[in-house]
Amino acid sequence: MFENITIVGVGLIGGSFALAMKDKGIAKKAIGVTRSESSAKRALDLGLIDEALPLKEAVAKSDLIYISIPVDTTIDTTLQVLDIINDKQIVLDAGSTKDALCKAIADHPKRKRFVATHPMWGTEYSGPEAAVHGAFEGRACVICEKEKSDSDAVTTVEDIYKKIGMNLVYMDAKAHDVHAAYVSHISHITSFALANTVLEKEREEDAIFELAGGGFASTVRLAKSNPAMWVPIFMQNRENVLDVLNEHISQLRKFKASLEKENAEYLTELMENANKIKRIIK
Amino acid sequence: MFENITIVGVGLIGGSFALAMKDKGIAKKAIGVTRSESSAKRALDLGLIDEALPLKEAVAKSDLIYISIPVDTTIDTTLQVLDIINDKQIVLDAGSTKDALCKAIADHPKRKRFVATHPMWGTEYSGPEAAVHGAFEGRACVICEKEKSDSDAVTTVEDIYKKIGMNLVYMDAKAHDVHAAYVSHISHITSFALANTVLEKEREEDAIFELAGGGFASTVRLAKSNPAMWVPIFMQNRENVLDVLNEHISQLRKFKASLEKENAEYLTELMENANKIKRIIK
Repeated sequence: MFENITIVGVGLIGGSFALAMKDKGIAKKAIGVTRSESSAKRALDLGLIDEALPLKEAVAKSDLIYISIPVDTTIDTTLQVLDIINDKQIVLDAGSTKDALCKAIADHPKRKRFVATHPMWGTEYSGPEAAVHGAFEGRACVICEKEKSDSDAVTTVEDIYKKIGMNLVYMDAKAHDVHAAYVSHISHITSFALANTVLEKEREEDAIFELAGGGFASTVRLAKSNPAMWVPIFMQNRENVLDVLNEHISQLRKFKASLEKENAEYLTELMENANKIKRIIK
Repeated sequence: MFENITIVGVGLIGGSFALAMKDKGIAKKAIGVTRSESSAKRALDLGLIDEALPLKEAVAKSDLIYISIPVDTTIDTTLQVLDIINDKQIVLDAGSTKDALCKAIADHPKRKRFVATHPMWGTEYSGPEAAVHGAFEGRACVICEKEKSDSDAVTTVEDIYKKIGMNLVYMDAKAHDVHAAYVSHISHITSFALANTVLEKEREEDAIFELAGGGFASTVRLAKSNPAMWVPIFMQNRENVLDVLNEHISQLRKFKASLEKENAEYLTELMENANKIKRIIK
């Protein structure tokens, strides 16, 4: 069991990770590093962390440092943390993009103490209040470039994720970013765009949302997600996201063409193909 | 309480309606009219209906006839039923499009015994096995052109939907179809297209779905829906669906432009606008 772990960024992911670590008896105490005193106070009040400290003091007291902040600030913070750790401490991140980070830290003398991870769990909510018990369970966690980390660090990180109920998947950073664009990032873009489509119409029609049912709620749910988290993800992974977005627009155009031509046969074919998703999503 | 009601089409909607009618003590017996002997047998085995009969025999024994079949066959079936009912029987449908149907029956001598309704509830599953207890509760039910139905028929139908827990919304048929395109039909198209986007990629990458999490499942869930139900809806409501689809593609293009230009500010603006959906979807 860890005496102290540091959580840099105590929001949805960091807060839920802190809870899981204590719930599973993996860590005794969680020290939070937060951007503001207000979020430190809320994280303390919610019992996510036991103490709030500045980065250096927190790292000095911890065997494990978990970085769970927006991906645009992850690189600098990771470099700062690597600068001040010793050869026993372990650093890992939870970011939704991996290639830029792995490249940026590649030549750091402490690279081997870092493990690049992406636990594939989340909700549309953010901040300390969004943290929940039992997060991560049954979901996939990607570990990237494990060969670039010390094996003791990898083993420790693997044990932690397994104990909190995750299934480990190994990938290089580039492949991770492509996959994430397909199974996570594009879902967010379509949901944001769908919300804008319908909100645009609402300007003319007050009553439109009286009718909104479960299907609409389900496809538009992710549009509630926090831009502070997602803009940096889309920007860092923009080439992959653009590829998938272009493919998605071209798939939508096929539906459009089938409707314009009143081609029910083609429309049926497109939908029957989409039904194959049953194989994957139970 | 009704002694007998007829359910034409005992699938997701018709089966769930039969259950609700019996659960709430509104009907004693449900007679099913089905396309095939196999679905009649399954509906009987599942306890959705108490008897299966051909259309004419079923209608002759029933005070209320509920038509819940794909919208392309609803028009003919409704006309057939109106041809054989008396001045006391009540007919209603549950279709996702209303304009074509209302137009087609406008001049029928029994038009006033018909109430056009759309209970806005559903799941991605279909057939008798998809029917559930407690469906419809807390959802909106649209009643169209109530002034064209006899007031006793409207009152009876209103009472039924209220008793099964629905909130009534009144609209003309054209307005209904526009609204349905925005809050239901487009969600299905985006979900089908998203499934096709990702399935296309899967041809190259076996592992892609190992990473699929809750966000992906939520946005792609509707892609499991039955083309036999949805193709006729899209075809009947094609002009409205095309309008919304064009708007949706243009919203997606804004995301594309912001990424291509690496314009984080514009991207943030698009996402903050989408966040306004929080007001509507709790």
